[in-house]
Amino acid sequence: MENSINFTIKDTIKFIKKHNNYVILTHASPDGDTLGAGYALYYGLKQLGKSAEVICPEVIPSKYGYFLCETDHINRKDAVVIAVDVADKRLLGALEQEFGNEVDLCIDHHISNVRYAKALYLDADASATCEMIYELLCALKIKFNDTIAKALYTGISTDTGCFKYSCVTAKTHIIAANLYAYNIEADVINKVMFDTKSKKLLTLERMVLDTAEYHFDDKCMMISITADMQNKTGCSGTDLEGLVNISRSVEGVLAGVTIKQTGDNAYKASLRTYAPLNASHICQTLGGGGHKNAAGVSLSGSLEEVKSKILSAIKQNMEETNAGSTTAQ
Amino acid sequence: MENSINFTIKDTIKFIKKHNNYVILTHASPDGDTLGAGYALYYGLKQLGKSAEVICPEVIPSKYGYFLCETDHINRKDAVVIAVDVADKRLLGALEQEFGNEVDLCIDHHISNVRYAKALYLDADASATCEMIYELLCALKIKFNDTIAKALYTGISTDTGCFKYSCVTAKTHIIAANLYAYNIEADVINKVMFDTKSKKLLTLERMVLDTAEYHFDDKCMMISITADMQNKTGCSGTDLEGLVNISRSVEGVLAGVTIKQTGDNAYKASLRTYAPLNASHICQTLGGGGHKNAAGVSLSGSLEEVKSKILSAIKQNMEETNAGSTTAQ
Repeated sequence: MENSINFTIKDTIKFIKKHNNYVILTHASPDGDTLGAGYALYYGLKQLGKSAEVICPEVIPSKYGYFLCETDHINRKDAVVIAVDVADKRLLGALEQEFGNEVDLCIDHHISNVRYAKALYLDADASATCEMIYELLCALKIKFNDTIAKALYTGISTDTGCFKYSCVTAKTHIIAANLYAYNIEADVINKVMFDTKSKKLLTLERMVLDTAEYHFDDKCMMISITADMQNKTGCSGTDLEGLVNISRSVEGVLAGVTIKQTGDNAYKASLRTYAPLNASHICQTLGGGGHKNAAGVSLSGSLEEVKSKILSAIKQNMEETNAGSTTAQ
Repeated sequence: MENSINFTIKDTIKFIKKHNNYVILTHASPDGDTLGAGYALYYGLKQLGKSAEVICPEVIPSKYGYFLCETDHINRKDAVVIAVDVADKRLLGALEQEFGNEVDLCIDHHISNVRYAKALYLDADASATCEMIYELLCALKIKFNDTIAKALYTGISTDTGCFKYSCVTAKTHIIAANLYAYNIEADVINKVMFDTKSKKLLTLERMVLDTAEYHFDDKCMMISITADMQNKTGCSGTDLEGLVNISRSVEGVLAGVTIKQTGDNAYKASLRTYAPLNASHICQTLGGGGHKNAAGVSLSGSLEEVKSKILSAIKQNMEETNAGSTTAQ
């Protein structure tokens, strides 16, 4: 497929007014933006007298309970399918087989959207898909309430690191200001989304910090999460996501490496870099890939072998970019 | 003194228009809000053709370099004195003796302001003093530029935890949106203010996490920072401030305790609580004080004795408030 028709907001409004039964799909590893967008759209469609059902490929983490009411269940055969914040049909996970080629409209803010849907309403300048849904609901003259406002705020806040990142614009803040007209309890949402850690994760963090090693005049920091640590603490999957931020927030570090054991002699390395280093180039030399500042690669061997491979690749990139001394430490 | 005249924004504008030489004081342990407010006001006064000097009681941390240009130096004897974000003259630190009783106007958003200045322009609904300075500069028809906008953004962002806390209002977001009209590089500011840690602090964090202990069915978490750890890592003073957040962000914890060694057999305990527990009540029983959710107390004895005193006080508060089982663990 990969040749969606481009939809403007006006096309999207027409599309929504025209149909009556909607399946709304979120992506797998659901986050605040896909869920906030999905549910806010759902509440909006219900207000318009439409039938709708939100389908998430995975169990929704309980922390999103602030805005998730029960969704209706509809006859999926009669419905048009809207995917929200889903840049690639592969991100539908368990739903890809059923819906991967059946998405009538994708509403998304990822510039990397692979155009798998029949129509695509894309705004790459939006900080979050929830920014787009906010504008869509306004244009549809939906009456906002606390629940809709909480859903949209959660999506915008989580996708922007609470208004921290470069994707934030004046518009993002204006929308947030407008959502404060409702009882969104933003401080409670932000506490749950950003400042709540499980005891087991804190225990894992302590173990991981014990593995910290510095290389190349402290320009590279490397931490490891072994299978043993995951077993001992009971942390896995999305629990581990935040740990990659440890190595990228250390002053002076240009390459932050987080190595996660995924099996016997199997590891996944996540790399975060700052200019002049290029995470994508480094991971590509090892068979992986990603973006300029964030990339990853799967590697086999012992932990020491894996570390050594990554350090060599970083060293090469440091030399190519004149990023400083690469005397191994 | 403690009987300031109340100033409205109009009174403040009159005051500023009337005088020509200003000393602007920030508080000790300078943060983004006191510095942002002080420097934004300084740039505004300069635009009005006034003479002004910003005086900070301590060396300004280098991370605030985003908006700090050199300040002029003026004859302090001829000047009127404005303190920004300084709730108590004791917070002037090294400047208290010279200026403590000489503050002509204090501009502040702390409800706890002790009214030490001759006049007080207080807006306890403002999320940051920088919110007030923004409105003041607008009312004075100051032409904003990147530097002023960065100063104000830094103050608002740092005092609200990047728009996370309950002090944020719709107005806070509207001001942020307006500041985005300038090249504030908010993502860079936020990275420096929130997501940059020194290697030594990370090393200290690792040591501190090793001291974590849980009590009362995990409703209390306690961590310790010994003098030995401070010496080994070279961390002290403001380096340690963020560590109190560790214990308050653990899921299920109602009382997070951070014990810092301040001398031989001398400790300072910082307590963070969630309802129904009351940090102020707990610390008061030990001779300390503070707010409902954040309080502190200085205690003497061995570390074990200090821990035991605090645990007893927490246990008592848990029993009084029926906060759950208090079987010591």
